[in-house]
Amino acid sequence: MTSSGLNQLLGADLYFKCEHLQKVGAFKARGAANAVLQLPAGTDLVATHSSGNHGAALAWAAAEQGLRCKVVMPENAPQVKKSAVAAYGAEIVFCEPTLQARESTLEALVQTSGAHVVPPFDDARIIAGQGTVVPEIVAQCRERGFAPDLIVAPVGGGGLLAGVGLAVSALAPDMKVLGAEPAGADDAQRSFRSGVRVTEQVPNTIADGLRTTLGERNFLLIRDHVNDVVTVTEDAIRQALEYLWQRTKQFVEPSAAVGLAAVMAHPARFRNKRVVVVLTGGNMDIGAAAKLVAGSL
Amino acid sequence: MTSSGLNQLLGADLYFKCEHLQKVGAFKARGAANAVLQLPAGTDLVATHSSGNHGAALAWAAAEQGLRCKVVMPENAPQVKKSAVAAYGAEIVFCEPTLQARESTLEALVQTSGAHVVPPFDDARIIAGQGTVVPEIVAQCRERGFAPDLIVAPVGGGGLLAGVGLAVSALAPDMKVLGAEPAGADDAQRSFRSGVRVTEQVPNTIADGLRTTLGERNFLLIRDHVNDVVTVTEDAIRQALEYLWQRTKQFVEPSAAVGLAAVMAHPARFRNKRVVVVLTGGNMDIGAAAKLVAGSL
Repeated sequence: MTSSGLNQLLGADLYFKCEHLQKVGAFKARGAANAVLQLPAGTDLVATHSSGNHGAALAWAAAEQGLRCKVVMPENAPQVKKSAVAAYGAEIVFCEPTLQARESTLEALVQTSGAHVVPPFDDARIIAGQGTVVPEIVAQCRERGFAPDLIVAPVGGGGLLAGVGLAVSALAPDMKVLGAEPAGADDAQRSFRSGVRVTEQVPNTIADGLRTTLGERNFLLIRDHVNDVVTVTEDAIRQALEYLWQRTKQFVEPSAAVGLAAVMAHPARFRNKRVVVVLTGGNMDIGAAAKLVAGSL
Repeated sequence: MTSSGLNQLLGADLYFKCEHLQKVGAFKARGAANAVLQLPAGTDLVATHSSGNHGAALAWAAAEQGLRCKVVMPENAPQVKKSAVAAYGAEIVFCEPTLQARESTLEALVQTSGAHVVPPFDDARIIAGQGTVVPEIVAQCRERGFAPDLIVAPVGGGGLLAGVGLAVSALAPDMKVLGAEPAGADDAQRSFRSGVRVTEQVPNTIADGLRTTLGERNFLLIRDHVNDVVTVTEDAIRQALEYLWQRTKQFVEPSAAVGLAAVMAHPARFRNKRVVVVLTGGNMDIGAAAKLVAGSL
């Protein structure tokens, strides 16, 4: 999708890759499908932990293959994401909203049920799956007669950004890849710039999909295949979100606005460029959207 | 656009025609463009009255042709619609929020400026222009290997519904056409069923684009070329709007949800049918959306 109004405002040619229109409303369907399609023979139960979209994606991919699925979710996950996991027939196991609680709850679940774990991002199958967005982008742009100058993708755990970086290196090495991250969850930028993966952070951002810490495989791939990681303020995310709702009429979630926020916050890097911005997901509580507008979230 | 979740829920195959992604964010761009492209030679100023989308559409179409444009708008028009008219370079002339005030203000403006009036709906060029959505629908469905059973379009002044009825009669006479209207602005249904155009009503609906009274040309065409007009409650509009936001991720305005509301309110009429639902526009104040969610609008 494109918006001539936004292009005029920002002095760049933006092409939105609409992963919020993907199955389960997020790019996470790609990685989950890729993982489920290559499970060890005989697997009949998969499990994961997720603040939401990966959980729904795994629930969907498992249901498509006739497998059972359990998803460990923090109690404070958005209602719309809990409902989606349940709607695909997976069982939700609630835990405290910390990475440690998620991991220990998942570990206990595996011990008792023998479930095969499909992690949300630090997994080669997931990273490769998320990277499948790149051949689509390249082909869709080629159909329209151009090659993009760069791709901007949000980074949380780093599954998407690592997959995009890897796929771009292989398929379109002239294209630059930029990660975009909330300043309130800037572990990827600090990791990228220091060369050492930052594992301690207390995320503080409305972009609930990006509150996770960068994975290890993800860090190594991002370090080697991504050109830079930039951060954006919460105000910039809010404004980008409003632009996406009002100008493109796409009801995306806050995490999905972080790429456009990066373009708006760093205009000189994008001026007169052909920029693909990945809109990562659209699973948004209406109530939460109203609170965002009122500035109370 | 399609949503397998909505199809499952409603037992019908819905195909959304996304006029909110049209230029100026509404189907009104079609009629305005058609009118402006056939103005009398020498016209350099056009004018209209509009609660919003037609005003923006005429402003856009005029600007595209290098013409000046004045738009009479009620003071209570949504801010986002006022901003759009201004952004396309038209001059806004405010009036009281009644049809009479709009018409007398426009009449006075024509007297002093000599502007050529392009009415919002009761105009052959506008009706024909709005009807251009039909050949697109027919072609897009044919590409996907099917012919729709019916088209559902909201009706306010009746420009879209009359144009759709007329074009369907000419191009796809086997297809049924259904108008959908808020119960709080049901002049089209009363006119259709009684055979006499109802000209008195005090509209009461959140669907601000449908508060206008059915035009005369529009009534005659709808009477002859439309199969039925159904009404929906405000609650149904609200629920359809939430479905559109959450399931299809399309941030449409309340008027655009009236077609889906009709499908939800009258399921037996649509079961197992291939139904094209026209999403008419997406020009929605974020603040108004928040109020809608809170139930205070």
